[in-house]
Amino acid sequence: MTALDGLDGFTIEVPSWAYGNSGTRFKVFSRPGVPRDPYEKISDAAQVHRVTGLAPRVSLHIPWDTVDDWSDLRAHAEKLGVRLGAVNSNLFQDDDYRLGSLCHPDRRIREKAVEHHLHCLEIMRETGSTDLKIWLPDGLNYPGQDSLRGRQERLAEGLQRIYAALDPEHRILLEYKLFEPAFYSMDIPDWGTSLLHCLALGPQATVVLDTGHHAPGTNIEFIVMQLLRQGRLGAFDFNSRFYADDDLIVGAADPFQLFRILSEIVTAGAHRPGSGVNFMLDQCHNIEDKIPGQIRSVLNVEQALAKALLIDQEALAAAQRDGDVLAANGILMDAYETDVRGALADRREARGLPRDPMTAYAASGYAASIATARVGGEQAGWGA
Amino acid sequence: MTALDGLDGFTIEVPSWAYGNSGTRFKVFSRPGVPRDPYEKISDAAQVHRVTGLAPRVSLHIPWDTVDDWSDLRAHAEKLGVRLGAVNSNLFQDDDYRLGSLCHPDRRIREKAVEHHLHCLEIMRETGSTDLKIWLPDGLNYPGQDSLRGRQERLAEGLQRIYAALDPEHRILLEYKLFEPAFYSMDIPDWGTSLLHCLALGPQATVVLDTGHHAPGTNIEFIVMQLLRQGRLGAFDFNSRFYADDDLIVGAADPFQLFRILSEIVTAGAHRPGSGVNFMLDQCHNIEDKIPGQIRSVLNVEQALAKALLIDQEALAAAQRDGDVLAANGILMDAYETDVRGALADRREARGLPRDPMTAYAASGYAASIATARVGGEQAGWGA
Amino acid sequence: MTALDGLDGFTIEVPSWAYGNSGTRFKVFSRPGVPRDPYEKISDAAQVHRVTGLAPRVSLHIPWDTVDDWSDLRAHAEKLGVRLGAVNSNLFQDDDYRLGSLCHPDRRIREKAVEHHLHCLEIMRETGSTDLKIWLPDGLNYPGQDSLRGRQERLAEGLQRIYAALDPEHRILLEYKLFEPAFYSMDIPDWGTSLLHCLALGPQATVVLDTGHHAPGTNIEFIVMQLLRQGRLGAFDFNSRFYADDDLIVGAADPFQLFRILSEIVTAGAHRPGSGVNFMLDQCHNIEDKIPGQIRSVLNVEQALAKALLIDQEALAAAQRDGDVLAANGILMDAYETDVRGALADRREARGLPRDPMTAYAASGYAASIATARVGGEQAGWGA
Amino acid sequence: MTALDGLDGFTIEVPSWAYGNSGTRFKVFSRPGVPRDPYEKISDAAQVHRVTGLAPRVSLHIPWDTVDDWSDLRAHAEKLGVRLGAVNSNLFQDDDYRLGSLCHPDRRIREKAVEHHLHCLEIMRETGSTDLKIWLPDGLNYPGQDSLRGRQERLAEGLQRIYAALDPEHRILLEYKLFEPAFYSMDIPDWGTSLLHCLALGPQATVVLDTGHHAPGTNIEFIVMQLLRQGRLGAFDFNSRFYADDDLIVGAADPFQLFRILSEIVTAGAHRPGSGVNFMLDQCHNIEDKIPGQIRSVLNVEQALAKALLIDQEALAAAQRDGDVLAANGILMDAYETDVRGALADRREARGLPRDPMTAYAASGYAASIATARVGGEQAGWGA
Repeated sequence: MTALDGLDGFTIEVPSWAYGNSGTRFKVFSRPGVPRDPYEKISDAAQVHRVTGLAPRVSLHIPWDTVDDWSDLRAHAEKLGVRLGAVNSNLFQDDDYRLGSLCHPDRRIREKAVEHHLHCLEIMRETGSTDLKIWLPDGLNYPGQDSLRGRQERLAEGLQRIYAALDPEHRILLEYKLFEPAFYSMDIPDWGTSLLHCLALGPQATVVLDTGHHAPGTNIEFIVMQLLRQGRLGAFDFNSRFYADDDLIVGAADPFQLFRILSEIVTAGAHRPGSGVNFMLDQCHNIEDKIPGQIRSVLNVEQALAKALLIDQEALAAAQRDGDVLAANGILMDAYETDVRGALADRREARGLPRDPMTAYAASGYAASIATARVGGEQAGWGA
Repeated sequence: MTALDGLDGFTIEVPSWAYGNSGTRFKVFSRPGVPRDPYEKISDAAQVHRVTGLAPRVSLHIPWDTVDDWSDLRAHAEKLGVRLGAVNSNLFQDDDYRLGSLCHPDRRIREKAVEHHLHCLEIMRETGSTDLKIWLPDGLNYPGQDSLRGRQERLAEGLQRIYAALDPEHRILLEYKLFEPAFYSMDIPDWGTSLLHCLALGPQATVVLDTGHHAPGTNIEFIVMQLLRQGRLGAFDFNSRFYADDDLIVGAADPFQLFRILSEIVTAGAHRPGSGVNFMLDQCHNIEDKIPGQIRSVLNVEQALAKALLIDQEALAAAQRDGDVLAANGILMDAYETDVRGALADRREARGLPRDPMTAYAASGYAASIATARVGGEQAGWGA
Repeated sequence: MTALDGLDGFTIEVPSWAYGNSGTRFKVFSRPGVPRDPYEKISDAAQVHRVTGLAPRVSLHIPWDTVDDWSDLRAHAEKLGVRLGAVNSNLFQDDDYRLGSLCHPDRRIREKAVEHHLHCLEIMRETGSTDLKIWLPDGLNYPGQDSLRGRQERLAEGLQRIYAALDPEHRILLEYKLFEPAFYSMDIPDWGTSLLHCLALGPQATVVLDTGHHAPGTNIEFIVMQLLRQGRLGAFDFNSRFYADDDLIVGAADPFQLFRILSEIVTAGAHRPGSGVNFMLDQCHNIEDKIPGQIRSVLNVEQALAKALLIDQEALAAAQRDGDVLAANGILMDAYETDVRGALADRREARGLPRDPMTAYAASGYAASIATARVGGEQAGWGA
Repeated sequence: MTALDGLDGFTIEVPSWAYGNSGTRFKVFSRPGVPRDPYEKISDAAQVHRVTGLAPRVSLHIPWDTVDDWSDLRAHAEKLGVRLGAVNSNLFQDDDYRLGSLCHPDRRIREKAVEHHLHCLEIMRETGSTDLKIWLPDGLNYPGQDSLRGRQERLAEGLQRIYAALDPEHRILLEYKLFEPAFYSMDIPDWGTSLLHCLALGPQATVVLDTGHHAPGTNIEFIVMQLLRQGRLGAFDFNSRFYADDDLIVGAADPFQLFRILSEIVTAGAHRPGSGVNFMLDQCHNIEDKIPGQIRSVLNVEQALAKALLIDQEALAAAQRDGDVLAANGILMDAYETDVRGALADRREARGLPRDPMTAYAASGYAASIATARVGGEQAGWGA
């Protein structure tokens, strides 16, 4: 299957916070061996790359991943075969942000939020990161609480300040989300709002699509297509959901949807290196083991992409042209129903990777070794 | 309450098809007295304006409302105190449109759909209408059925053809809808897509927001605000929904939402004549009487606007500035909880209108007269 | 793969109305060759069974499928290798039912609805059908329109009248639906309400689960499990949905969900003949060809069941017992990811059926023959 | 308005945890003056009753509200004019509960969960509480993770153990919830499942309806009606939601829905003392002040009930009997549109309560006094 050559050079970026503890508002369960600092997180992330060959970059989250010496962290990562990736800012964990950050009615708070991003840009200059990812948790819980319009203007102003500070190789990745942590309205609730801000900012601003951030029934692959059409799909935050922003393993809830998303990617050639789309995970392994959870996740994306690459595009186009509804759908489904696990295992073996990364990791003894070694100290979580 | 002076000049456009039969896919129930032609529809619509003073325009739907002599229909309307309003095109009832119209894979069908709009523009020149409303029913039922991207390009091309034919005073009102009649994807599913097409077309293209065309949980007043901020909110299609595009009486399902929408309108001053926003109804009275259903609808919009006008904007802005969540929300709720029915009745009386339009219509004998007179012929419905 | 022996004796019942025209409230598109009477519908249904060996029964809908001589229709079916299946009553197409049928405020209308079911039972005695399927379209469009509680009491009374008339081998299959055609509330909106009525009636009353009749986010396999646990899952109405009751081809929107549903069936052994669960389709082929649409549908159910049969139940139970989240999920996914198309083709061939039923049907010339033969007359649809 | 006499004796129970800190998974914001122990929570709750006269009981949550001497806490409450109400068990904050509690695959964990409830019953005997509220947070994040059916059986067994330990005056209030903290399936996801367990247990088991625990589009007042019809509506957990289980102030998101719910209550007479329905709040004041948030909440429920009491039931029944859709809906809306704030203020004054409880509380100086006094120690939150 030479179609799978389309996987060459395809990579997925993993988030440092997936290796730390996470949970719901009800409880964060801790697990043995969870990292206590950014170095340990990156060590864990490197395991994912080691057995899959798919995950050579690790996203950072500031301030959670702050270290004294960034070049040392960078060297640590490179020694383990991975690189530092996008820098994520944090606008939700300071007491000052109770009523918002870049949209806050008080100029002082807004200023603080802008400064935080300028600081993130400084870090990016040291880590070699090019992507500044901004997820804006701002919003309102009650109608009337603040001016929806006023908040847009404040947001536009703050983003302009940040955009002006970008280096030429930097990008802003601007995320949108329907709800949570605010419940009446979010200030960037949908792709349309995110895109309008990006268009106002300039070419270095692009949209991040988190697969868990939409209303029920939203056709996500349509949005992927539309953002690609506008040249503004900067990145994915992959995960799965059944209801809200569940942050489950990507492909676990609706693998057919993941396949359809990647089919749009393939159609546009956006899976190829250099397309400018950063394929990232954003997940929480609340109850399952974290490193295997990440391995499973990158494999799920690879599998969906492999299937999308198998679509007989010529036959599909012909059936579409003929208006043959069932034939066109059938061609898509034929690719989806193909079991690519064997071919992907062969491909891994040919590249010196384990045929079955899940088993290889389990057999590696790494889980036991960190459970033993990482005793004492405080486990990393969303708060640290 | 001088705040209610904000109602001066506020008007609502009613749809000709609301007076004809409508239903679900399961059944269209007929009712005595239903119009059999456009003249009778306009007569019915004029009753709504007669008792409310709020509904001086009637939208037409082509080809349902086609007549031999447009100037005669126009004269008929004007004699009854109303005018002909927006022209709605129809892209869903020709057998050729099974797989789409402006997005159809076959150029011949696309051409036909463009021609239909050029024909609508001709009609507008005769009726004096300025708004061409395009609701695109195109979409796919099955993944793979057609190229999502290809359809966008065809759509853009077709819209450009239509836009190029506009007179200077014409506008395109471009509607979006999440689903139905297509179930996998619609070609204009959301406000973002509609807006992108409008931006590509030029300043005479604006977005129509139908309150029933969103995913569950969507904050509609946010979209109103965003489209006003972009200067591209062209019109509303008001109605109510609990689940899908139920097309119930506006304000019947969630009157607080209607109030919030109109609060955003008031904040932006867009309720004033000349704002460029056309406040229209798009409803189906499947089981209730149609003329009273329309009267109730325009009264519901008026009532919500009246409440929105009562918001103490100064106090609200102060509470928002102070970050006083409960106070700000309370100021909004105070306006909402105010019973404006008496004040609106007084206002009607002062303008020579009946205090209670529902009762006045019931007492008028009109319902009995049309039930008696309109015997024989075929009742108008969505198909005619 | 001997696990696939679990397919032995598994059958799917197809609906007569899937072969007639259907559509949305906007348009019913007609297609060449569509049946004009119940005989032609059954001929078409027999084609599905001929190429798949899976669909030996055809559900009837009364009055749409009314014929003068039921034994003649029965003989027609049997000659073609199929049998007459469940009888579906119709409570939505009489003008009397505008405000409901079994729940209508007027006793006369309720009586009429009861009588209709007694008539259906008479037909069942002639067709040899044992299942009376009741989908209650009753509901309200506006709050206050009628008493929610009063309607439940009327419904209970009407159902008791019908239940009392059952023969010992008869069953009532009572369907539930969240919305449509009523938009504020349906009188049997959820499985809980359906089950309560069944429990009140007695052991011959069971619940029908239509996969398209739930709110977004509902976990359907949980309901399957719960109804099986109560011994009251009488039947499925299979189809697919993205938004509402889209009635698309089963497995087309979320094949993984279909697999999960059938996994619950397999776990309970309910796929086996004699389990009492009637696996039926309820679909509309609005834009695609109808017979191939039905063939694809029964193949999709077979494929999902085949995958469910492949689950390593022993290993799954062990992983569940150990609380190994990823392993347990992985065992399920291994079955799902298996490509069973080849094994199913082999199985068909071994039973004298075509390896590829879609192709076999296309090659049969049947479509062309009916397009030629069925000229004149009125095509069957939901209204006839 | 003598209809408002229906408010006599109507009470709302407030939750102790609403006075402590709460938040989302992203952040818990702390506020000055937040209680540090159960005594302080009850003092705060007493403020709500002092200014509204509506909230004479406080629910406890175990272990959060555990004290050494229950009779002392009881005396503290009674001295402040309130009583201890329902006892809420906690099955979500022990590390042992990562994979469930009453449904856990491991018998030891299930036993622990049962024991916790026996302990809660002991506390109830000391506090004089009669209601044991069980919200089961158990569920699965991934398909296959555990047996859906097996978990039901374990749950049934555990509940029986607890039920068997009830005193004659005790009740179990069994809550259901669609999702969160589990994201694939909850073990009591809907009212049907809760009711089935209650029916299996016996007459002392009833269902709790939390207004935020349903799928989008669910008609909650229908469920209220159905549970009342079965005699099994034990309690409400009131709050508001736009999307998920937002736990906002009741009546803040959809006041018309709250009115419809209370209309069903009034129709059944279930607002009257002795009806057996416990009207409770379950809310989180994440960003707003907590005591005023609670005051606003009980006032919102009172206001909605007052409007429901104003419905002209006789006229409504007549319009419903006549099938006059618009008239019946209009009668309901007339009650809803009535501004009852003045009448309620008069009623309060006549009973020696402040006309405006929000203002009275603000003027009382209580907020400043607790902000000053409660310095040091650890603020109570969901974790303590």
